Amino acid sequence: MKIRIPATSANLGPGFDCLGLAIALYNNVQIKPSGYYSVSIRGEGEENIKLKKNNIFVSIFYEVYQELRGKKEPFRFEFENKIPFSRGMGSSSAVIVGAIASAYEMAGLKVDKDAVLNRALVYESHPDNIAPAVYGGFTASLVEDKKVKTIRKPLSSEIKAVMVIPDRSMSTAHSRMQLPKVYSMKNVVYNLSRASVLSAAFMSENWDMLRDASRDCMHEYRRMKQMRELFKVRDVALDCGALMSTLSGSGSSFFNLAKEEDAQRLVVALKSEFEMFRVEEFDFDNNGFEITQS
Amino acid sequence: MKIRIPATSANLGPGFDCLGLAIALYNNVQIKPSGYYSVSIRGEGEENIKLKKNNIFVSIFYEVYQELRGKKEPFRFEFENKIPFSRGMGSSSAVIVGAIASAYEMAGLKVDKDAVLNRALVYESHPDNIAPAVYGGFTASLVEDKKVKTIRKPLSSEIKAVMVIPDRSMSTAHSRMQLPKVYSMKNVVYNLSRASVLSAAFMSENWDMLRDASRDCMHEYRRMKQMRELFKVRDVALDCGALMSTLSGSGSSFFNLAKEEDAQRLVVALKSEFEMFRVEEFDFDNNGFEITQS
Repeated sequence: MKIRIPATSANLGPGFDCLGLAIALYNNVQIKPSGYYSVSIRGEGEENIKLKKNNIFVSIFYEVYQELRGKKEPFRFEFENKIPFSRGMGSSSAVIVGAIASAYEMAGLKVDKDAVLNRALVYESHPDNIAPAVYGGFTASLVEDKKVKTIRKPLSSEIKAVMVIPDRSMSTAHSRMQLPKVYSMKNVVYNLSRASVLSAAFMSENWDMLRDASRDCMHEYRRMKQMRELFKVRDVALDCGALMSTLSGSGSSFFNLAKEEDAQRLVVALKSEFEMFRVEEFDFDNNGFEITQS
Repeated sequence: MKIRIPATSANLGPGFDCLGLAIALYNNVQIKPSGYYSVSIRGEGEENIKLKKNNIFVSIFYEVYQELRGKKEPFRFEFENKIPFSRGMGSSSAVIVGAIASAYEMAGLKVDKDAVLNRALVYESHPDNIAPAVYGGFTASLVEDKKVKTIRKPLSSEIKAVMVIPDRSMSTAHSRMQLPKVYSMKNVVYNLSRASVLSAAFMSENWDMLRDASRDCMHEYRRMKQMRELFKVRDVALDCGALMSTLSGSGSSFFNLAKEEDAQRLVVALKSEFEMFRVEEFDFDNNGFEITQS
């Protein structure tokens, strides 16, 4: 079997731990029955020898597989990773979702997207990246009784993602530690109102509302202070046609959304300002993970 | 001229100060040029003699009218108030919105809904009631640079409001003072995720999602403690077919949303449990304030 899992961008500004969307940049994994266990990695992580021995995808895969089949069996895993590591583009969620879905498939069971998502919550406590990795499109999610409830909306081909991917990472754990323990009512209402309107804007394709609705006062500023160029990334993006410009997950990447006709101009403007950063236009993904036989 | 302004229910659980919707229960006001200033009140407030002398509608009307026309002129104001006072059903917002819109109309100017809403923000700092009073339907709103930005969605005739209106009020100011000054990250994410999903649910008419998405951990519990019967109102409502059941604004009314075919059963169940409370089914309003000549 082969599985591909999309990159994702979470938070989208005010939607801390609940809003996300899927980007058409994929990790591909091929899994085959084999006489012995083996791993090969191409793309992101191929230079890291540890990833062959201590591979999170493989660990989760076998944990779930064993649960479903009552035993382990040897497989060959071939990874072709396109989603950058530790850049806030959902590489961990892609690994988790991909491993669980693959385990169901290799165990000969129906791969139910809701079941995969709820199981993914065991490994990743927030649904903001795992939900779009499973379903694709824009997703608003909540967790109730250890189950994820998601509303999704396919993303129009009229809009594109322009990602700015820095040459270095920001640690998610460190990044989260920077955040205040408590928030004032005023700040809560700031994010609450914007996340609600942002959600409504994606549902109704009201692109003009994205700019005001994507502002955050809870986490971005403190995180972006770790990499001050990001403030300028946002300024340039919003000046050059981005409809919204938000820290992708906990960073370091920046997510910009633009109309199709503005996206390349935005890429050129950002590339010329930030030569050391990778700047690339992507389509959105509306399918989430997909399994094929071959 | 005549104007009618709908009742509104705000917060809808987690959407503190930003989500609201309009209910087909109206205050009607007729304003006529007259040789001298006079006021008559029927319905809610008719027994309160102070409301004739010190009338907020009239004060705001003249403040705006004088600004637009440069002078005051005598009018006769005839109020027919159906929206209960101090019950969390948007009677203050109806007064503010109605007064501003009437002032524009009587000054001979075009009544622009956006302008009325932004002006209303001067008298009521949160947009959760004034936005649906202006536009009708479901509204998600934010405030940026002293302007309200709203996304609205008409409410289907498949669903109805069942209001439980207690025989006594809870003070909004007191009610707000009961609330914590700060909120933990966990509680913020609880409401943030639910308000986002609730907004998406109304936009996509995903009624099955309302129940989980309408839960709140910021304000309802502390407010409802002032009138403990309200906990039972919710239990009965959710047991008898309500899709969601939330404190209306800062109380004391309870807002329940039900499918058309379940609404009357819900009314009967609530009436039999809460004999002292008014229980009534209403349509939703999808127009906001409306001005007619006559």
